[in-house]
Amino acid sequence: MIRFYNGRILTLANDCTVQRGALWTDGDRIALVGEEPEQLPAFEREIDLQGNLLMPSFKNAHTHSGMTFLRAFAEDVPLQEWLFEKVFPYEAKLSEEDVYVFTQLAILEYLSSGTTAAFDMYLTPGTTAQASIECGMRTVLCSGVSGDAEDIDRLYQQYQQFRNYHPLVTYRLGFHAEYTSSPALRREIAKLAQAEHAPVYMHISETQKEHQECIERNGCSPAVHFEELGLWEHGGGGFHGVWLDEADRAVFRRNGLWLVSCPASNAKLASGIAPLTDCEREGVHLALGTDGPASNNALDMFREMYLGTVLQRIRCNDAAALPATSMLKAATAGAARAMGLWDCDTLEVGKQADLIVIDLTHPNLQPEHDIVRGLVFSGGKQDITLTMCAGKILYENGEYFCGLYPQAVYAEAQKRTKRLTQ
Amino acid sequence: MIRFYNGRILTLANDCTVQRGALWTDGDRIALVGEEPEQLPAFEREIDLQGNLLMPSFKNAHTHSGMTFLRAFAEDVPLQEWLFEKVFPYEAKLSEEDVYVFTQLAILEYLSSGTTAAFDMYLTPGTTAQASIECGMRTVLCSGVSGDAEDIDRLYQQYQQFRNYHPLVTYRLGFHAEYTSSPALRREIAKLAQAEHAPVYMHISETQKEHQECIERNGCSPAVHFEELGLWEHGGGGFHGVWLDEADRAVFRRNGLWLVSCPASNAKLASGIAPLTDCEREGVHLALGTDGPASNNALDMFREMYLGTVLQRIRCNDAAALPATSMLKAATAGAARAMGLWDCDTLEVGKQADLIVIDLTHPNLQPEHDIVRGLVFSGGKQDITLTMCAGKILYENGEYFCGLYPQAVYAEAQKRTKRLTQ
Repeated sequence: MIRFYNGRILTLANDCTVQRGALWTDGDRIALVGEEPEQLPAFEREIDLQGNLLMPSFKNAHTHSGMTFLRAFAEDVPLQEWLFEKVFPYEAKLSEEDVYVFTQLAILEYLSSGTTAAFDMYLTPGTTAQASIECGMRTVLCSGVSGDAEDIDRLYQQYQQFRNYHPLVTYRLGFHAEYTSSPALRREIAKLAQAEHAPVYMHISETQKEHQECIERNGCSPAVHFEELGLWEHGGGGFHGVWLDEADRAVFRRNGLWLVSCPASNAKLASGIAPLTDCEREGVHLALGTDGPASNNALDMFREMYLGTVLQRIRCNDAAALPATSMLKAATAGAARAMGLWDCDTLEVGKQADLIVIDLTHPNLQPEHDIVRGLVFSGGKQDITLTMCAGKILYENGEYFCGLYPQAVYAEAQKRTKRLTQ
Repeated sequence: MIRFYNGRILTLANDCTVQRGALWTDGDRIALVGEEPEQLPAFEREIDLQGNLLMPSFKNAHTHSGMTFLRAFAEDVPLQEWLFEKVFPYEAKLSEEDVYVFTQLAILEYLSSGTTAAFDMYLTPGTTAQASIECGMRTVLCSGVSGDAEDIDRLYQQYQQFRNYHPLVTYRLGFHAEYTSSPALRREIAKLAQAEHAPVYMHISETQKEHQECIERNGCSPAVHFEELGLWEHGGGGFHGVWLDEADRAVFRRNGLWLVSCPASNAKLASGIAPLTDCEREGVHLALGTDGPASNNALDMFREMYLGTVLQRIRCNDAAALPATSMLKAATAGAARAMGLWDCDTLEVGKQADLIVIDLTHPNLQPEHDIVRGLVFSGGKQDITLTMCAGKILYENGEYFCGLYPQAVYAEAQKRTKRLTQ
């Protein structure tokens, strides 16, 4: 058992209230939150928070971790040129071991920025799972299948293999997007989802072009089309959703779907600003993700929370558009729920001990008026002093305890990157 | 003398090329950049950069440092309510000593995020100067006078007092804005600027309302109006400039003025996105600033560089809109020149030793494809390991060497904030 005491706690169990008290972990779960009994049990470790903040860790509800090798590889170029000349040809050369190393590099960044779970759509789920499990981090694999119906067997096989793979690794049905899949493949996935009572996820309406071309091809938007196909009979969600219109958002609300917004990537690639304010008002569930490191380029949920709220102010021309607290929830509890991690969302007894400690004694968080809004508007990963996943401390005070030696990962990643991109 | 060796150096003397080599400082100036002679002199200290990056420090070309006490005080409220109910009434209660303490708090944030100079428009220049000099940081005071012509005497007196106040502190003529000053005051300032051959600065076209109301009042935009008044005969610049139109930008170009953009503040307050891409294409000098901590809320030039470029992509619907390198220059050399710090802009022999060290061995900056663009798109203040101003190391590896004890500053700032805001 580990005891955190003398701190402030943002449980997110009800609202964004910060309370004083202690938190105990027992194995991978939370054993106590709040007031402690007079008789304390024996602990492996007791951590005096010295007034600092304990809160649920960030969960990154949309990423492609293995793309770290293309970070800052091709900047300041138009989207289509970037994708077709600077991403796809290089991804085609990746080996499973490459993805393993590049995912390790991403994990170092996740842990140091307080993220303990990634909803990871990438090429080789087995090696992504391996890197994650070895580090003690949580991953929900999401299939990103594209192409024709013949790929349904591979998808079903992966689903069977990974759905209950490990306490830290599960799997969700998904496909890349409408514009990269055949109608037959989508129908097969819908059948599978219905048979398995499984939620389904995909990129959706990320660019205006994609959204419009779907309408031309299918007579309706991606969201309406997917609902009609029966893809979402057991829930799920969509990534990006920049161009979701009112009817699309109604589909999301009706089916209890999660909109996973990626504001940094959408801004950098000039895709636009997702209608998060409308979503929130209309009751659509919101989560946040970074998208891959080639298009973001950071894997930093602080940035997403911040952009999530300030870009809405630009979009709506209203300095009070989307409250900061909504984005804090979308980056933590919301993201966890979006990826099916229903016991990793809040700090409550019996939940998984996936949490972070924020050092409030940094100048950017002083003076203390409003801790939660302060985190969104001026917090950053430099404020994180501890990251715990499933009850294990994986990062503390600048040091990693996840079995990786950063310099070795950097050297290996650099060597492989050089080979792939030369 | 201090020797930095075994590193990479971004001098910004010509372009954004990173070179290998050494840098020596002698007193407050740079004594060598590049290759070292065989015979080395004696150094006070030798710093092995281990391949990490030495670059010009950030300069914050628009801020109100003393406003730290209102950081996160009133979030998610509309602009007018925020300004008139949550800012002005509380600022009216500030003492000189309050500003001194709140500026110290800002300085801690500047130094830990690699900023060595602030162009500071706030209420009590004397105490801002004192806090800055005591810490070894550079400040260019900018008058923010408002009201009627009777204030010209106070402005002239401050100008005389502070223009050559200290090697670390100078002063620039300025006034708050068109909408808070009388025509008579602006004419007096123009006369003073002409007599003193001095540049002039002010908030300009920050909001659409301000821009439009100036046109209604004066028959032309603020930029055209100020040029007609002769305010800029000896240069200067304007802060924000979100609503500068083509004619306004022509005024800026014609007079060699600096547009100091504050993208974070403009986004958070829903003011809009400044036309930086147009400015750059048309040859307007660009600099970046944070604006005050009440509207930003961070004092972090990494955020400004990042937003400076990605918001242009949204604005122009073009993923190649404004190059990242332009914003890196605007946050360093550009900002220095905007505030008249012509010997603090680049790393060249004879220039002031105002510089920072970036640890490139952080996961967010790996692998290394393009160091400079990497800094803009995924760099952050956690990557800064050393901040030097005028040849003195003021921050290194998380510790301050500027004479301030952070916990004492936080406690004092919190106490005073409580008194002021209760």
